[in-house]
Amino acid sequence: MIARRFWAASKEAKMQQLTADQFSLVYNAFSFTLAAMSAATLFLWISRSQVSHAYKTAITISGLVTAIAAYHYYRIFESWNAAYSVKDGIVTATGIGFVDAYRYVDWLLTVPLLLIELVLVMRLTKSETMSRATKLGFAAALMIILGYPGEVATNNATRALWGTLSAIPFTYIMWSLFGGLSKSIDSQPDNVRGLVKQARLLTFASWGFYPIVYMIPYTSLAGSTTEVAVQLGYTLADIIAKAGVGILIYNIAVRKSEAEADGMKVSYAA
Amino acid sequence: MIARRFWAASKEAKMQQLTADQFSLVYNAFSFTLAAMSAATLFLWISRSQVSHAYKTAITISGLVTAIAAYHYYRIFESWNAAYSVKDGIVTATGIGFVDAYRYVDWLLTVPLLLIELVLVMRLTKSETMSRATKLGFAAALMIILGYPGEVATNNATRALWGTLSAIPFTYIMWSLFGGLSKSIDSQPDNVRGLVKQARLLTFASWGFYPIVYMIPYTSLAGSTTEVAVQLGYTLADIIAKAGVGILIYNIAVRKSEAEADGMKVSYAA
Repeated sequence: MIARRFWAASKEAKMQQLTADQFSLVYNAFSFTLAAMSAATLFLWISRSQVSHAYKTAITISGLVTAIAAYHYYRIFESWNAAYSVKDGIVTATGIGFVDAYRYVDWLLTVPLLLIELVLVMRLTKSETMSRATKLGFAAALMIILGYPGEVATNNATRALWGTLSAIPFTYIMWSLFGGLSKSIDSQPDNVRGLVKQARLLTFASWGFYPIVYMIPYTSLAGSTTEVAVQLGYTLADIIAKAGVGILIYNIAVRKSEAEADGMKVSYAA
Repeated sequence: MIARRFWAASKEAKMQQLTADQFSLVYNAFSFTLAAMSAATLFLWISRSQVSHAYKTAITISGLVTAIAAYHYYRIFESWNAAYSVKDGIVTATGIGFVDAYRYVDWLLTVPLLLIELVLVMRLTKSETMSRATKLGFAAALMIILGYPGEVATNNATRALWGTLSAIPFTYIMWSLFGGLSKSIDSQPDNVRGLVKQARLLTFASWGFYPIVYMIPYTSLAGSTTEVAVQLGYTLADIIAKAGVGILIYNIAVRKSEAEADGMKVSYAA
């Protein structure tokens, strides 16, 4: 049923009459994101050797998030090209549906990992790390799963229903980031407390962007404009939430490594 | 003979009349699994430097298992796309058979390795490691080989015969995991004994899933529903048995490294 709506969605809603400019704007945005995510991945993994043992896993996972995103942007890019053909500046739908599901498949993997990297870089006690990572990861997956039926719904009422349900785990995540986790953040060393708060804020800001994009179809925008706005919106949010937060996590890890090492460079060895 | 039946199977049994949603559901599941297996591989190999020397091989092999699976899910994904063409939401069989054999080729390589990684992370005596790894690895390969003729059989009687034969090594493996290996598991350090039992249970639970999927064709489900259920079932079982168990093995290795290192951080150096 959901899948049927998905397919319907990818046929009706997605196969808009795009102008050549609209097509190439999205095309270029996808290619840009593929490059940006791949670059972030390489930076994080290569730089991993510069943080102390305690933070290596946080950096590994940050790079994993951007790597998974890079893979999906490659697929999304290919799917966009398969869905439309451009000749002499005229865009025509090929009849092959644009696979929107890639985004949700990506988020299902990356969003829980994003919260886990944030928890890991804080270096809490083993038990607190485990319990927070588990709860936040589960809530994140639930949020994505509940959002999908709405994304592929062909009518806005269904979209609103699932969007609202998905907002419940979203609220829980934000509540625990700004509530329960605040104590742990305040107990971070002075030289990184600001950065950790920045990472939390960037997570909140970029995530807050998704529901807004999710609601674009409610607007009175023309079908093709809606499609372009949704694609560009999600793409921008992905870059900030994954590459942006990943680089912040790296900065936090470096500063904490330096502070904790005080001179014993040994622990830097990769 | 078997090959002929396999081909027949891949032409008749596999080329069902799928709906567009059945097609895209399996399509998305295959892409998700390709991403998940690749991500698990990268995580395991990058994090390998964080476990002490004694456990590096267990982590290398865990990553090898998910890497081999990623390769085969790429092939399976491509084969699925080659077997059907979707235009304007209508799925038609191209006449190119969906190659189911990839799964068995994958299992023939990965299932023995899965048991070997489980034995290795327990760090038994060299001689016990060798004999257990050999026996379990051989039994696992035999289990896969015996299952294949049934998988590709066009009638359920043949399927049942080979399925039953394949259940003999399966039973032996479970018997030795829960029998002979129990003593070794009880002799594991306290901080990991629970995790090792979890890994064993997850192996049992996920493996127990395969025979159930294997028997789906006995049900009265429509051909296309059967095909979709079999593909999704094997896919889910693969993710748990390979990526899930791999991450557990990593956690065991990390905890044991920390416990054994007591302070001599040197042994962490990659």
